[in-house]
Amino acid sequence: MIKIAIDAMGSDAGSAMVVEAVKKFQATYKDVELYVVGKASELEEISSVATIIDAKDVMGMEDGALEVLRRKESSMLKALDLVVNKTCAGICTAGSTAAFLTGATIKLKMIPGIVRGAYMSPFPTEDGKGVVVLDLGANNENTPEHLVQFAKMGNVFAEKIWQRPNPKVYLLSNGSEENKGSPVGKEAYQILKKEEKLNFCGNLEARDVLSGKADVIVCDGYAGNILLKTLEGSLSLVKRLLKEAFMKSKKTKMGYLLTRSALAGFAEKLDYKQYGGGLLVGVNGVAVKAHGNSDALTFYHAIRLTYELIKGQVVEQIGEAMKNG
Amino acid sequence: MIKIAIDAMGSDAGSAMVVEAVKKFQATYKDVELYVVGKASELEEISSVATIIDAKDVMGMEDGALEVLRRKESSMLKALDLVVNKTCAGICTAGSTAAFLTGATIKLKMIPGIVRGAYMSPFPTEDGKGVVVLDLGANNENTPEHLVQFAKMGNVFAEKIWQRPNPKVYLLSNGSEENKGSPVGKEAYQILKKEEKLNFCGNLEARDVLSGKADVIVCDGYAGNILLKTLEGSLSLVKRLLKEAFMKSKKTKMGYLLTRSALAGFAEKLDYKQYGGGLLVGVNGVAVKAHGNSDALTFYHAIRLTYELIKGQVVEQIGEAMKNG
Repeated sequence: MIKIAIDAMGSDAGSAMVVEAVKKFQATYKDVELYVVGKASELEEISSVATIIDAKDVMGMEDGALEVLRRKESSMLKALDLVVNKTCAGICTAGSTAAFLTGATIKLKMIPGIVRGAYMSPFPTEDGKGVVVLDLGANNENTPEHLVQFAKMGNVFAEKIWQRPNPKVYLLSNGSEENKGSPVGKEAYQILKKEEKLNFCGNLEARDVLSGKADVIVCDGYAGNILLKTLEGSLSLVKRLLKEAFMKSKKTKMGYLLTRSALAGFAEKLDYKQYGGGLLVGVNGVAVKAHGNSDALTFYHAIRLTYELIKGQVVEQIGEAMKNG
Repeated sequence: MIKIAIDAMGSDAGSAMVVEAVKKFQATYKDVELYVVGKASELEEISSVATIIDAKDVMGMEDGALEVLRRKESSMLKALDLVVNKTCAGICTAGSTAAFLTGATIKLKMIPGIVRGAYMSPFPTEDGKGVVVLDLGANNENTPEHLVQFAKMGNVFAEKIWQRPNPKVYLLSNGSEENKGSPVGKEAYQILKKEEKLNFCGNLEARDVLSGKADVIVCDGYAGNILLKTLEGSLSLVKRLLKEAFMKSKKTKMGYLLTRSALAGFAEKLDYKQYGGGLLVGVNGVAVKAHGNSDALTFYHAIRLTYELIKGQVVEQIGEAMKNG
């Protein structure tokens, strides 16, 4: 049985969305036991398909990162404790990212050999394959050694979870030539090109992130944050402007009706919610962070990601990769 | 008379596009003398409205940055020389960015007091106002002092060229709180908040760059490159996918016809080509870099930007700002 701890609270949509996702997930996957932590009164509906653990407190989106460790009754901390005491092999939450990254790092601790954890997430690509990018902001500053470990962890994900042979690993940089990059990136480049177990393909410019050229893209947490937020901002702006254009007149509304199904395919290609969310890699346990504005379907995909990461033994595989250099 | 040196060569579309742009510009602006540098045989058509200076060599997009200084017969170097010897007050080129940034920095030299130049460009915003962002990649690494000077130069642009009173200046960061940012960004924050002559408004996340919240956004060249290229990549992907969706069937083509005019407004809002290009600020002369894939209209806007920067005395104004702290 695969056991997953679910923090039912703290998302924008509240626990009702989690209830829907859990029902759908339990109906599809049979080798799973879900431990759902949150206000028990809001979770009655799923008490027959999941183990409910009552938690009176909820971490807010604005609460400071370290706050989670003091909030003993919070659903996030209680769900994390289920992984610490080995009841569950992984946790899935849609709560505060800052609180989760800090809480999971401190409570779960690092996989032996890993110096820093990283926030990793799949991005959609033009060819539909997807690419995994890390670090997207768990760190503010990184060393070349951190980046090399991120490359190895991303490689484990692409190879073991996505089943891609010999994944193409790139460094995000300000140019594609070998001599480009931040000082930290340049040093990481020199180490990575000597790593025989990685298919390191060099530097990649930010404009090629969504092209499908790479399987794994490695960057420091600061640059990763700029990348992620720029993408979020530009795609949500495009969405708003398109909607505005289509709603302009009777004529454009008619045009929308004629193109709607084709546009749905377009939107799906760019929808990073299909992946459910990201994960904190490097810690001793599977730690998945669903999007804060998740709906039931997105959260379902986040539970599925947690499930696949546990089943694919990503934590053990990263441990192995560290041992074998 | 405002005198502008124009490098007619080196863009993707070649000199024909420059010829069109020059004709259009000369027909509109009467207080301008254009010195067009390039293969004279390709520029005959405009010899009656502009001064043609023959240059046998063209800087390629792939030529190394320092190459430009050795290529005495290149149109880019010859055009730069017109600014160095004070024949012209500014230069406009659609040639290689790397060659231009290096060539302009070394040949034109810095405005007294300026430590580093920056590549600055206006971006479109949701509210249609636009925002100016720097440094977009002239530098690989910056100090807090560089960022503070970038803020002052961006402020001059917003205030003197765009005529915005009390421009809102932000630092690009990985969070909006004061304690967020790279080590360099955090130090710059502390200096900027004490600058009485700047309306410094704090940190801005990358997802808000296009929102219209800021008039000036300051970042180090590495982060700026990630920001610029991510935007370019995501917007060109959206364009391709939209086109694909509209061309899918007879029905979607019909839908496109009905929405075309509304969609043109949408595309225009996101089209950074309306600004013509970016500029290297901090050097002794106006140095405008048009987009490499400029068409005649884009290049026309780039010449207009050069004209406005000279007329607005941006170089002198930056010099003043440096003197007055």
